Amino acid sequence: MFDHRHEHIDDRMVLLQANLDDMNPEYVSYVSDRLFEAGANDVYWIPIVMKRGRPGVMLNVLVSEERIGEMERIVFAETTTLGLRYLRADVHRLGREFATVETPWGPITVKLGFHRGELVQMAPEFKECEAAAKSSGVPLKTVYDEVRRRYADMRSAAGQQSGSGGGT
Amino acid sequence: MFDHRHEHIDDRMVLLQANLDDMNPEYVSYVSDRLFEAGANDVYWIPIVMKRGRPGVMLNVLVSEERIGEMERIVFAETTTLGLRYLRADVHRLGREFATVETPWGPITVKLGFHRGELVQMAPEFKECEAAAKSSGVPLKTVYDEVRRRYADMRSAAGQQSGSGGGT
Amino acid sequence: MFDHRHEHIDDRMVLLQANLDDMNPEYVSYVSDRLFEAGANDVYWIPIVMKRGRPGVMLNVLVSEERIGEMERIVFAETTTLGLRYLRADVHRLGREFATVETPWGPITVKLGFHRGELVQMAPEFKECEAAAKSSGVPLKTVYDEVRRRYADMRSAAGQQSGSGGGT
Amino acid sequence: MFDHRHEHIDDRMVLLQANLDDMNPEYVSYVSDRLFEAGANDVYWIPIVMKRGRPGVMLNVLVSEERIGEMERIVFAETTTLGLRYLRADVHRLGREFATVETPWGPITVKLGFHRGELVQMAPEFKECEAAAKSSGVPLKTVYDEVRRRYADMRSAAGQQSGSGGGT
Amino acid sequence: MFDHRHEHIDDRMVLLQANLDDMNPEYVSYVSDRLFEAGANDVYWIPIVMKRGRPGVMLNVLVSEERIGEMERIVFAETTTLGLRYLRADVHRLGREFATVETPWGPITVKLGFHRGELVQMAPEFKECEAAAKSSGVPLKTVYDEVRRRYADMRSAAGQQSGSGGGT
Amino acid sequence: MFDHRHEHIDDRMVLLQANLDDMNPEYVSYVSDRLFEAGANDVYWIPIVMKRGRPGVMLNVLVSEERIGEMERIVFAETTTLGLRYLRADVHRLGREFATVETPWGPITVKLGFHRGELVQMAPEFKECEAAAKSSGVPLKTVYDEVRRRYADMRSAAGQQSGSGGGT
Repeated sequence: MFDHRHEHIDDRMVLLQANLDDMNPEYVSYVSDRLFEAGANDVYWIPIVMKRGRPGVMLNVLVSEERIGEMERIVFAETTTLGLRYLRADVHRLGREFATVETPWGPITVKLGFHRGELVQMAPEFKECEAAAKSSGVPLKTVYDEVRRRYADMRSAAGQQSGSGGGT
Repeated sequence: MFDHRHEHIDDRMVLLQANLDDMNPEYVSYVSDRLFEAGANDVYWIPIVMKRGRPGVMLNVLVSEERIGEMERIVFAETTTLGLRYLRADVHRLGREFATVETPWGPITVKLGFHRGELVQMAPEFKECEAAAKSSGVPLKTVYDEVRRRYADMRSAAGQQSGSGGGT
Repeated sequence: MFDHRHEHIDDRMVLLQANLDDMNPEYVSYVSDRLFEAGANDVYWIPIVMKRGRPGVMLNVLVSEERIGEMERIVFAETTTLGLRYLRADVHRLGREFATVETPWGPITVKLGFHRGELVQMAPEFKECEAAAKSSGVPLKTVYDEVRRRYADMRSAAGQQSGSGGGT
Repeated sequence: MFDHRHEHIDDRMVLLQANLDDMNPEYVSYVSDRLFEAGANDVYWIPIVMKRGRPGVMLNVLVSEERIGEMERIVFAETTTLGLRYLRADVHRLGREFATVETPWGPITVKLGFHRGELVQMAPEFKECEAAAKSSGVPLKTVYDEVRRRYADMRSAAGQQSGSGGGT
Repeated sequence: MFDHRHEHIDDRMVLLQANLDDMNPEYVSYVSDRLFEAGANDVYWIPIVMKRGRPGVMLNVLVSEERIGEMERIVFAETTTLGLRYLRADVHRLGREFATVETPWGPITVKLGFHRGELVQMAPEFKECEAAAKSSGVPLKTVYDEVRRRYADMRSAAGQQSGSGGGT
Repeated sequence: MFDHRHEHIDDRMVLLQANLDDMNPEYVSYVSDRLFEAGANDVYWIPIVMKRGRPGVMLNVLVSEERIGEMERIVFAETTTLGLRYLRADVHRLGREFATVETPWGPITVKLGFHRGELVQMAPEFKECEAAAKSSGVPLKTVYDEVRRRYADMRSAAGQQSGSGGGT
């Protein structure tokens, strides 16, 4: 099992695509849910213009080779497509860590991304921010901004202590 | 009956809109055809993101007030919507004339648009260019460019004769 | 209070729009949820290209006049916009009724839409179909198709009994 | 020659792409037509944002390796691109069969898709449904729904006779 | 002349729209520039699907009534449209103020938006952040985040001094 | 170093993609600029619908293998992504030449594209046309059309002199 804490390249990934011009768009969220549950790494939809000017959508599923069989079973069962395309893709993933930030709405997790050992990404967890916003009545954007600010303050304080430069 | 050769503003137009998140996109071209046949001035579709992230489409029909009844009959019959919006719109239309250009593929019509008496638009007729491209095997863009060039040459020659400056 | 069982036109509706080119798209679902909870009739997002080629989104909220104040409070609090547009819109709503269809996965509701007394729309309720699909493991599209088929059979049987022509 | 009645994977397909930011969109339908006539398996267009925020389109052509030469000839002749990209793609196609359904508007073909021997797709032929809707004046969606309903009834009757479970 | 420091509603605005299905997208940035220079309040483009499935764009210009004449002159001269639509729009604008934040890259302006006297928006000026990022080599997102953090710290300090609660 | 005057296929290209659902769209033009400066062959953005119906964008960078390291450094620093995809792509580029056309606004360059020795593309240089339009006050589309017309006249005259057929 790979250790996702380390930056790495996964060269056994596949981008599965299906163009849909005759599917009720109501199915979209359900199809995404089922694919994520079955192990898709990402699922997204691209608006496209198909034959006869039909405004269709292209389903995209990023998934590891070994899960292709399960993905195609779901796509054929739940969408209206008669075919699928597979494109090979190498996926470069940053090293990931998590940190906790104390906020007026309780502790909130931030996801950190490292490229060649350097911190390059810092993202508050959506679901926790959403929960904090809902329960407190504070705007979601205020929660996000406050989490970012507190994480930066924390890092800046830690940097001063240790004498390292820090800085995102 | 209004004379479309003159630039004018039509202040009795309506923009009819319907958001569709549960319609098979295969119906789109058929719905457009039926609306145009029944007197719509324009029909177009906008990709939108609806409830639960559904990639739907918004149908837009530009039509004169007196034809609203017929449009809504078609939209309710042929799409899956449970409601329609009407927005009032004033439509400013250029004065229109047509000219004929001689080309290696026979005569082709160009549509001319005039703003305050001055020529501002010149568009070769799509269907005639398409027919010329199909029968001759010449690329469509070559046909378009040649029609434009010949119309410009024609106008430039006419301008020199009469001593007027011309120029688009 | 208006009786939504009857087809009617609501001429006191407003389409509120805000262009967003500097907002984290993660906020989108949260903003929609809050607007729906506060009484928006519809909320949808249109991908647009803004100044400097920024791929922004336009928020659209369809709402009755009397709720504008509450909507603008939410939009200013939860998005990054410095302004809003209001466009007046008349909304034509079909007469609505509900029916229940017996299926192998239990009873499922269908929403019916009537235009000038005639049935023009029939839509299975998404959430019930989704729940049936999830609990039974049957594809969602199969559930939808079966609900539609059974409703049509029901209507067709009723039509034959009463001698009326029926037809969707 | 491959027998399309069987489910298979075609690993000699190519996805040809060209970004167009200076082409008159009027050429789009003509380009699609020409590519389909010359043997493209699929042609679709994706709205994109290009340099300087230009709202361009990306042409996509799915085609077998041996037809690349002919496709590139058409793309260079009929569009304005100075280059093309080729991405390799494996295409998984369902087994296909056709069936005929008797309807009040005459017989209509349905296309069936089989995954691992099981029926997973059933799609009425668009052109036949369109013709039936036009000649009868019945809404296209009613024709579609009726074809689906009758096919399901047919299958359900056959399943009962033979004692097999059927499904879909 | 209106004082934009106060929140207000401008009820003399117009949304001018033109659908373009035969215009070279290269003109888009130039058209936007010219319209902004001539006093447009906003200019944006929506990808749409037009007749024959053409992936066109809809130009939108938000402008005050008194500038319509100049806008239409530019649109007819610089685009290929033969007509324009005008929709009336009321525009609600937040009260605006500016503040200056000291940063490691020099002072940077932030735009503030007030709704009913309360601060609801705070946006660093794009051009100044961009210039700081370019000259320092620091990522633009780091500049933005730092400006936001310092403004929040500034406000928080001011709030503590005066005893007011503050809060964005 | 390859000679771009000749038509060729570059089989060492990579399409780098990142889906962004939590990035301020204001960064888009800056990111594009930095990637082009660092040697990207093309940069474009596709509107997509991501998890929870977020209207995100997909960044696409076409670049040669040897520049991947530099591209990923910029993408991780300037966007919010935690991962990248790489798809291999062969790029077919037309032979390119430049010609100069005399116009009423001074000489303007046109870019020519050759497929199998035949001229298939002719595009006026955007920046020069824009500069001519700005300094002269003539509409940009008029400048473009005039450059095209003059180039065609030039070629047609050259063809008659040499007795060759010309074309395009």
